[in-house]
Amino acid sequence: MSDDLDPRLKEPPYPLQALLGMEMTAWRDGFARVEMALAPAVMNRQGLPHGGIHATLLDTAMGYAVCHTGDPARRQMALTLSLTVNYLGQARGTRLIAEGTKTGGGARTCFAEGRLRDDRGTLMATASAVFRYRGIG
Amino acid sequence: MSDDLDPRLKEPPYPLQALLGMEMTAWRDGFARVEMALAPAVMNRQGLPHGGIHATLLDTAMGYAVCHTGDPARRQMALTLSLTVNYLGQARGTRLIAEGTKTGGGARTCFAEGRLRDDRGTLMATASAVFRYRGIG
Amino acid sequence: MSDDLDPRLKEPPYPLQALLGMEMTAWRDGFARVEMALAPAVMNRQGLPHGGIHATLLDTAMGYAVCHTGDPARRQMALTLSLTVNYLGQARGTRLIAEGTKTGGGARTCFAEGRLRDDRGTLMATASAVFRYRGIG
Amino acid sequence: MSDDLDPRLKEPPYPLQALLGMEMTAWRDGFARVEMALAPAVMNRQGLPHGGIHATLLDTAMGYAVCHTGDPARRQMALTLSLTVNYLGQARGTRLIAEGTKTGGGARTCFAEGRLRDDRGTLMATASAVFRYRGIG
Repeated sequence: MSDDLDPRLKEPPYPLQALLGMEMTAWRDGFARVEMALAPAVMNRQGLPHGGIHATLLDTAMGYAVCHTGDPARRQMALTLSLTVNYLGQARGTRLIAEGTKTGGGARTCFAEGRLRDDRGTLMATASAVFRYRGIG
Repeated sequence: MSDDLDPRLKEPPYPLQALLGMEMTAWRDGFARVEMALAPAVMNRQGLPHGGIHATLLDTAMGYAVCHTGDPARRQMALTLSLTVNYLGQARGTRLIAEGTKTGGGARTCFAEGRLRDDRGTLMATASAVFRYRGIG
Repeated sequence: MSDDLDPRLKEPPYPLQALLGMEMTAWRDGFARVEMALAPAVMNRQGLPHGGIHATLLDTAMGYAVCHTGDPARRQMALTLSLTVNYLGQARGTRLIAEGTKTGGGARTCFAEGRLRDDRGTLMATASAVFRYRGIG
Repeated sequence: MSDDLDPRLKEPPYPLQALLGMEMTAWRDGFARVEMALAPAVMNRQGLPHGGIHATLLDTAMGYAVCHTGDPARRQMALTLSLTVNYLGQARGTRLIAEGTKTGGGARTCFAEGRLRDDRGTLMATASAVFRYRGIG
């Protein structure tokens, strides 16, 4: 699915991305997809993927979705103001795939929704978030 | 602050705890505290702690808060149904400290609130969550 | 749009429905639509529809969506455990239209999402909720 | 409890306040209390207070909390960006009492938390919200 990602927009992984193995596989206006392998290292006390991982992937995908500029020289940033994640089901596959979509907003604050699925299509979580834009840099 | 933690209740770190260096430092009926060093590895694209880390720590602290039994042989588990995190401010210290408090609920579902501060007392995030209990095992 | 509503499923309005003039205009498996006129009586301190009205309509539409049985003799009930509403834009029309869709869950708890639009199609709010089922009666 | 409310700050009820019988009984810097009788008119399909009423009272109390200026000539306004309500328990009394407290924020956006109790002290709901300030008018 990496054909959805303009190679010019590809950024080196930031630290938490590298730690978890998160990778962006799609990024266009108002939309982003972020994926990672369901590694043993992200499991919780119950042997299930920790709910914080769902939150991390969804926050990441939604944050990219609202920051797309299409121009690698213009990097828009945003701070999450509020994030809500609903946990619908457990993973059955081996890969976690989060998609974020911008739903609205203006020049200063904006909104997004997200879906987290595994690679077998199981809907694991939904999310919504409010972001505040920071200056383009 | 580790004197708030009955040593008999201490559990070996689960995988994500080990990966992030999260450590429980208090656990009593309806309350838990979880801490971690603000390591470079958890930073995001902007050089700030990733919002998913706030969510992970708060979900962890609230989850422990609602699962305290006081008896190491009776391990109560809970699944997060919904998690909301509000991001109030940026870290100025070197350590992240999440506290979770049970606010209500019954035998099957329950509620908690959380606060994330740094070691200088900065209130970084607040949170609330709904959990569903699983069988004691 | 009332052709989406099986007339056998039509229920007499409950008190708050009558007070606000809310009317269900669609109800099928996993989906419901609820509408009301944007009456002066629901305005807030700023002359805008009070955010509690968005929440009321969205909670109602999502609650019906998860309770559809198709059988007027089997009335499923649900209690809201958690509700999140994001306020995207202001009304420009004269009517508020909330749609709720069930997104997942099991026999005891379930999840839904909602959209609130005005009659000109403006997306005013999005929402998500967790519900707990009560016995059928 | 109306001694917590500077009579100079008392405002005529806006339309939805009048419709529901909501009354502000405390307002000081970063805090507000709003009350209403648990009237039959706000009941839902199950004969319980509709979840939208909890949301309305909590949004109102938190909104006032973040808009206190102490000067009736300087009316600060705020728009709700996001609202989350957790429903902990059912009313046993005859009056609903919502309290909102500002938790943080800056000049443009801010945060609050809320508690809804009945007049017997039952904790019915907790809430959090993000607001965006509008110009003082």
